[in-house]
Amino acid sequence: MVTAAGDAHPNIMTLTWTMVLDWSPRFALCTGPWNYTYQAMMKSGECVITIPTVELANQVLQVGTHTSQEIDKFSEFGLTSLPAVKVDAPLVSECYANLECKVVDRIKTQNIVILECVKAWIDGSVKDPRFLHAIGDGRFTVDGKTLNLRQKMLNKLPPGI
Amino acid sequence: MVTAAGDAHPNIMTLTWTMVLDWSPRFALCTGPWNYTYQAMMKSGECVITIPTVELANQVLQVGTHTSQEIDKFSEFGLTSLPAVKVDAPLVSECYANLECKVVDRIKTQNIVILECVKAWIDGSVKDPRFLHAIGDGRFTVDGKTLNLRQKMLNKLPPGI
Repeated sequence: MVTAAGDAHPNIMTLTWTMVLDWSPRFALCTGPWNYTYQAMMKSGECVITIPTVELANQVLQVGTHTSQEIDKFSEFGLTSLPAVKVDAPLVSECYANLECKVVDRIKTQNIVILECVKAWIDGSVKDPRFLHAIGDGRFTVDGKTLNLRQKMLNKLPPGI
Repeated sequence: MVTAAGDAHPNIMTLTWTMVLDWSPRFALCTGPWNYTYQAMMKSGECVITIPTVELANQVLQVGTHTSQEIDKFSEFGLTSLPAVKVDAPLVSECYANLECKVVDRIKTQNIVILECVKAWIDGSVKDPRFLHAIGDGRFTVDGKTLNLRQKMLNKLPPGI
């Protein structure tokens, strides 16, 4: 999900189409003016990417099917906003990770927004987070087992990763 | 993985950073001239996105840690190329899905290539495909259970999806 500061209340939207850009702390989102929270994000030039685990699936769906233009989705759907440090957009307390981001580019022709993360938060109390992967038709797969293939691709991993 | 036609032999590379663009048959890849197969893809303007299941994890890693400039990765790693219908790039017989694509845009500043799928193939004999999701540090999660939340987001799904 993505949050952005708002006049009346903080905004939050669910996005399906996202991408990490290489090993840099940059992300691409596919979104546009049809999302109310997109407009708030572009106005402020800031947002928070907030990463839920499977336990939040229902809230993720509720956030994704309502608009911040009409309601305060935080109070409506039981999400707790926390102040971020480097941006005005709020963190979501219930999410496993929160990434404070600045908007650094917009590719209007493809409805792509490029973000750079300036501060990251993680909930260290969650030992085995399971994330959701949208299939696109209303079904989501949940993380199963983890394969550690690190030794087979060491020549591709930059230092520090 | 992504294939592209080559002079000596077909090219294939593994990509970690990819994104579906909305519900259109368009995709964004984060790649650039440092990949040999990228150069072949841009020269021909065509490629095939080929989607492996977990059973191909070792080949995916081998493809990702070698360059088509030096070897024929298909014969080296036991992959079978099949002719596509609408592009010169090959399909990979062992993969669950193959998406014949045309390059429609390149965002040089962000190393993003935009593809449009012109024909899709799926292996109907595979009843329960499990896909890999790169964490980015050499670990991969494998699809576990599937949640069907379709009824909760019907207002967001376009007709036909």
